[in-house]
Amino acid sequence: MDKLTTSNKALEFILNNSQNYGTEEVPFSHSLGRVLKENIVADRDFPPFNRVSMDGIAIQFSEFENGKRTFKVEGIQPAGSKPHSMQNHENCIEVMTGAVLPKNTDVVIPYEQVSIVDGIATIEIKELRFFQNIHEQGKDKKEGDLIIPQNKVISSAEIGVLATVGKWTVKVAKQPKVMIVSTGDELVEVNETPADYQIRRSNVHTLVSILKKYYIDADSAHIADDKNALKEKIENFLNDYDVLLFSGAVSKGKFDFIPEILEELRVEKLFHKVAQRPGKPFWFGHKIIGSSRNNRNDKIVFAFPGNPISTFVSCLKYFVPWYQKSMKLDFENRTFALLGEDVIFKPSLTYFLQVKLEKRNGDLVAVPIRGNGSGDLAILVEADAFIELPNDRVEFKKDEVFPIIEYR
Amino acid sequence: MDKLTTSNKALEFILNNSQNYGTEEVPFSHSLGRVLKENIVADRDFPPFNRVSMDGIAIQFSEFENGKRTFKVEGIQPAGSKPHSMQNHENCIEVMTGAVLPKNTDVVIPYEQVSIVDGIATIEIKELRFFQNIHEQGKDKKEGDLIIPQNKVISSAEIGVLATVGKWTVKVAKQPKVMIVSTGDELVEVNETPADYQIRRSNVHTLVSILKKYYIDADSAHIADDKNALKEKIENFLNDYDVLLFSGAVSKGKFDFIPEILEELRVEKLFHKVAQRPGKPFWFGHKIIGSSRNNRNDKIVFAFPGNPISTFVSCLKYFVPWYQKSMKLDFENRTFALLGEDVIFKPSLTYFLQVKLEKRNGDLVAVPIRGNGSGDLAILVEADAFIELPNDRVEFKKDEVFPIIEYR
Repeated sequence: MDKLTTSNKALEFILNNSQNYGTEEVPFSHSLGRVLKENIVADRDFPPFNRVSMDGIAIQFSEFENGKRTFKVEGIQPAGSKPHSMQNHENCIEVMTGAVLPKNTDVVIPYEQVSIVDGIATIEIKELRFFQNIHEQGKDKKEGDLIIPQNKVISSAEIGVLATVGKWTVKVAKQPKVMIVSTGDELVEVNETPADYQIRRSNVHTLVSILKKYYIDADSAHIADDKNALKEKIENFLNDYDVLLFSGAVSKGKFDFIPEILEELRVEKLFHKVAQRPGKPFWFGHKIIGSSRNNRNDKIVFAFPGNPISTFVSCLKYFVPWYQKSMKLDFENRTFALLGEDVIFKPSLTYFLQVKLEKRNGDLVAVPIRGNGSGDLAILVEADAFIELPNDRVEFKKDEVFPIIEYR
Repeated sequence: MDKLTTSNKALEFILNNSQNYGTEEVPFSHSLGRVLKENIVADRDFPPFNRVSMDGIAIQFSEFENGKRTFKVEGIQPAGSKPHSMQNHENCIEVMTGAVLPKNTDVVIPYEQVSIVDGIATIEIKELRFFQNIHEQGKDKKEGDLIIPQNKVISSAEIGVLATVGKWTVKVAKQPKVMIVSTGDELVEVNETPADYQIRRSNVHTLVSILKKYYIDADSAHIADDKNALKEKIENFLNDYDVLLFSGAVSKGKFDFIPEILEELRVEKLFHKVAQRPGKPFWFGHKIIGSSRNNRNDKIVFAFPGNPISTFVSCLKYFVPWYQKSMKLDFENRTFALLGEDVIFKPSLTYFLQVKLEKRNGDLVAVPIRGNGSGDLAILVEADAFIELPNDRVEFKKDEVFPIIEYR
């Protein structure tokens, strides 16, 4: 019996091999989904001036307090114009949302509460609050304040802030260069007609699309089950890429050359075979490049088993957190769900069970979808996630809470 | 006082104006995130043959049942080769994962449970199950079975299935052509330095990035607050695009020309002003093109208020479900969360309150983040979602469940 690495231990090995690929400048309009690598500070006060927040008139509050209700319109202050200065403190100025508050005014009354006839505005309400409907300069942020700390994934919200503070280009984490390799003589391309004993390549395309969600443009290749050809190509890939993902040829078969080739190419095995279902034959290793701990740029190799569900769940469970840690993201923020029904699973393996997620009044419930073993790709379409049942138990009860791995 | 449309009623108007933009064929490798518009059926059985699922040897089960434990190795069956036919029923064939089960064999014993010396395999376990370690032809799906129904968003899981069944190109919903327009003379471009009374354009960039998450490549433009220029450009946009999104110039200001221009261009107003905070001045309309109900291709106009949070939440709350319904997606699958603390909100408005989401043992908790009013873009960075508090109540209690709108 092989000695198996536990899933937790495997993840620990992997996270200990997170890397740093440095940074690059990209146009902010192309930074969605990338990881911010600079602190974004306010380039000026937010708002940068006392900003009118309703269309209406601006007056001096003290006039209103002294009982005055009618005001001669002295001018108009549109948004985007230099601020007027009100000449007569008994007058008013019409002001537009987004405009600078005119000098010598300190309160805005919306049009809905004013009538204007022949250039005279009459206020129709009884109470005003000093400085109302004015978004005060610097109220949200002061110039120099930190608005977005680095190491955050840039979402639409951050795009708006980057635009506001004038970050035309922005410093983000460089993505690793990833090559995804399938092996296996049984595989033909998607646009080919397989013989009776062949199937089409699918894992590579699945992996490419998973990485696309993290804005990684991976390359992919297929290599036949020929040891010399495999070795030559893998050697080149190790030179040209940061990370290799394999699918297949990692188990005990006569043509499962990947582990031995990797070791011949001085990729150090960190583990082979994980106590999990599916995906047991998973192999992971690194090739250390560079001398000192601080100046390393290792090559990382994830060699996943070839069956579709194994590859799929292993990429989500291991590659994604490795990527997130390499980007210095907070990858610990796992999602949990209530198990939807009792499950019994006897082997001493971490069980990644396919589930459909249902939202029930604020609860997230994971309902198991039974497949026909780990090769059933079609079941992935019916499910939304895997629930992760630990290896130290046999019975798992309905409504118990476990971590899930979502993929939609 | 203006008559306000409730948020629910506004959404109803909007959903009643969902459109159908037809379909197009795209390469399956570029279909991630698109909406599938054909049923995907199995082009052959899944698996297409009796598939070996462990590396090991294949024998006849009846021989084992009759007490035989040693078997001469007659040959090797690699994956991707034509199936062998075992000549002597007392022999075995070495079989590789993914290979076709050789003829005249019906059970696979993994290498871990076999020793092979001088071409003789000895089985080292006491029990076997008929057909074990064989993934039976057609077990998952039969040729012609439906695997993916249409109207589903294509995720990584579907990419794998599309590859497997040989869908090199796939029929998906065509995306609407969307133009996003900002107005307002106070706005300058992101790479410009604003004067004291100006700010940079941000809403357009935010909206573009929200739509990007739905794989819509929107165009964008800025038009100055000049009525003639606005009208001419909007007329062109109505000809060239399916959907216009505006940000700003929809309220009561002297330069808020959008509603009157749209009506002059025969875009019918369906509502103006919604009982919500933020985003009250929201204007929505359509221009009916084509004669019959079934042959319509209306132009749709969402004119959002110009302040950043209003635009942001209105796009998520109204445009996104409109898009999803137009794609025939199940847009009803809303997410709910527990309110993290008591909230009092007196106006009779639907309140979109910014919240930070926290996962607590299977529960999703929405903790309010207090901003300084609807203009505070920076607060969006601290929050993850809006919680939607209905307009018919004033007090909202901790742990009550309400719908949320996530944006990360």
